Amino acid sequence: MSNTAINLRQKLSLFEECWSPRVIAEMNDYQFKLVKVMGEFVWHAHADTDEVFIVVEGEMTLEFRDKTVPLAAGEMYVVPRGTEHRPVATRECSVMLVEPRGVVNTGDAGGAYTAPDNVWV
Amino acid sequence: MSNTAINLRQKLSLFEECWSPRVIAEMNDYQFKLVKVMGEFVWHAHADTDEVFIVVEGEMTLEFRDKTVPLAAGEMYVVPRGTEHRPVATRECSVMLVEPRGVVNTGDAGGAYTAPDNVWV
Repeated sequence: MSNTAINLRQKLSLFEECWSPRVIAEMNDYQFKLVKVMGEFVWHAHADTDEVFIVVEGEMTLEFRDKTVPLAAGEMYVVPRGTEHRPVATRECSVMLVEPRGVVNTGDAGGAYTAPDNVWV
Repeated sequence: MSNTAINLRQKLSLFEECWSPRVIAEMNDYQFKLVKVMGEFVWHAHADTDEVFIVVEGEMTLEFRDKTVPLAAGEMYVVPRGTEHRPVATRECSVMLVEPRGVVNTGDAGGAYTAPDNVWV
């Protein structure tokens, strides 16, 4: 049990790679991850879980097959389980994800953007 | 499934009461709640779950029996299950809590600060 808080900006300063989530905390069997996003990710879904996006810095868009949801710093969105989505950002944007331990970033899609799971920063 | 993001500051503008968590989102069987804190809460623990504090605006302190953890905006802390803690703030501070659906704010302590569960804003 830590003696200090987790500072999101300090953690973000420790890595540069985009689309590569870093775990910063666990609550029960859930993880809080920071990820930097820029450009267009792959369309994918997570069949078994909802996924929360909380924008820490910058702006991004969550594209769905039937709509587009803009997200700015201080805003969040819950992607329902099984729902195809694609994160997109025109400039680098920093996001906190909340989801169960073991969720892979590309969900059912796989491919080149698939990042190692459970990498802490 | 909403067409728009959840804006934390907009949600905070909709209530004034302190120590009365308001649910703003659900992810699986977990809830995201906003709460305004000022003064000293009661010592309590949650026997069955960890609890996450993310400070949105202001500053607060998490007191434990063996230490004190300051938290400012952009910082978070995971209170382990079963750990006695007391949130304290000298000025009003706005916090996002993440915890399983059904967690009562005063945990095992009860008393006058116990707020209704599952109130959405």
